[in-house]
Amino acid sequence: MDKTLFQHRSIRKYLAKPIEEPLLSHILEAGTRASTTGNMQVYSMVVTSDAEIKARLWEAHFKQNMVKEAPVVITFCADFNRFNLWCHQRNAEPGYDNFLSFVTAAVDALLVAQNVCVSAESNGLGICYLGTTTYMAEKIIDILHLPVGVVPVTTVVMGYPEELSELNDRLPLDAVVHYETYKAYSAEDIDKLYQQKENLPQTKELLELNKKDTLAQIFTDNRYKKSDNVLFSQHLLNVLHKQGFMNNEK
Amino acid sequence: MDKTLFQHRSIRKYLAKPIEEPLLSHILEAGTRASTTGNMQVYSMVVTSDAEIKARLWEAHFKQNMVKEAPVVITFCADFNRFNLWCHQRNAEPGYDNFLSFVTAAVDALLVAQNVCVSAESNGLGICYLGTTTYMAEKIIDILHLPVGVVPVTTVVMGYPEELSELNDRLPLDAVVHYETYKAYSAEDIDKLYQQKENLPQTKELLELNKKDTLAQIFTDNRYKKSDNVLFSQHLLNVLHKQGFMNNEK
Repeated sequence: MDKTLFQHRSIRKYLAKPIEEPLLSHILEAGTRASTTGNMQVYSMVVTSDAEIKARLWEAHFKQNMVKEAPVVITFCADFNRFNLWCHQRNAEPGYDNFLSFVTAAVDALLVAQNVCVSAESNGLGICYLGTTTYMAEKIIDILHLPVGVVPVTTVVMGYPEELSELNDRLPLDAVVHYETYKAYSAEDIDKLYQQKENLPQTKELLELNKKDTLAQIFTDNRYKKSDNVLFSQHLLNVLHKQGFMNNEK
Repeated sequence: MDKTLFQHRSIRKYLAKPIEEPLLSHILEAGTRASTTGNMQVYSMVVTSDAEIKARLWEAHFKQNMVKEAPVVITFCADFNRFNLWCHQRNAEPGYDNFLSFVTAAVDALLVAQNVCVSAESNGLGICYLGTTTYMAEKIIDILHLPVGVVPVTTVVMGYPEELSELNDRLPLDAVVHYETYKAYSAEDIDKLYQQKENLPQTKELLELNKKDTLAQIFTDNRYKKSDNVLFSQHLLNVLHKQGFMNNEK
């Protein structure tokens, strides 16, 4: 029944074949069936297939070619704009311009995104999430004309896969599950839980290629560096201010 | 294939029947197959079934009885603690004590949560998300012994449904989908998109019960009040500081 979930791999190469209707709408509709806080549906999906707009998104997303090549790019947004407009038209004073409301709306958007991906994959399509969305939120807001009350939280490219990649490795289930309460990891636990990942052939190739001693260093020094994280944290907090989600005083 | 997604309803009444192994592990494993930023898996699932600990969680979650009654309560956490420990043991200096890293880890945790829910439902179980997690994060951190680097972002109760509720209404797909770029809503759009929801029999009952003129007022005045949102925003930002995710300066 949930076989689709176990078959997930991120697809980075797509066929030049559009996603036909009514399949696309069916997939988006599957998104809307996800749980949503108080049934407020405080999210939006911006579905982009126009080549010119995709080219601008490609630039924002660190020029990852799948953004140009996939027929559809979906930007999932935390969105209180629509809900706020409704409140104003109904003689109600919305109080959703604060950090908690951003998080509430972001949770909504992310559950929708995962439903969309599961539906797409169960219908023979491939997907890939773009983590660059939160780094480049300001530029994406500009490209997609997102108003105050709307912040992009993730992006999914979608289309027919050119090739199925291998399933990605995962840590043993023990690594990410705690029973009853959180159990502190001992140094031995950490060694054991990361052992399989560290011994993969592709890990050894990566270490040689990057001239690093440990896989962890490839993350801290190359892929997810402190200086980038700090810079993008500042950008993202500025975006939350600008989009009206940081009025946290009475 | 994706029928499960279209059958989702939140379940608030559960049978007193435990979730057997290996089903529970299968469902948690389905969670781990979700996309994760850079394959870092910066999340944890805390699976609580002990009656005493559930009673403490029940109190934190505004005494919603399903927290006591469901056999399993899963708290999904943004978790850089494990990854940071690994980095330190591998001569790598982690730079993940900032807001961007919190958001990255929260995205990870939420995609896992939705996979877990889809897997559970496809295996005959019911689930309900608890939005109270972000309001009461500090208390939940205390109950579950979450260390620095770990923040709860959502909670799911899970078990065999006592009864299947009706499917919840949703806004028309048009309301939440924008093509190419975001389209501003006119006042007429808003009226049209909320019309169906406003005309539901249960909406009319709610208005009478709450002595309100509009459904929007029930949200702004009763369910999701500005004063609560502001207070919980302050709490949540304090939690991010305390758990080590707000070092956003070089």
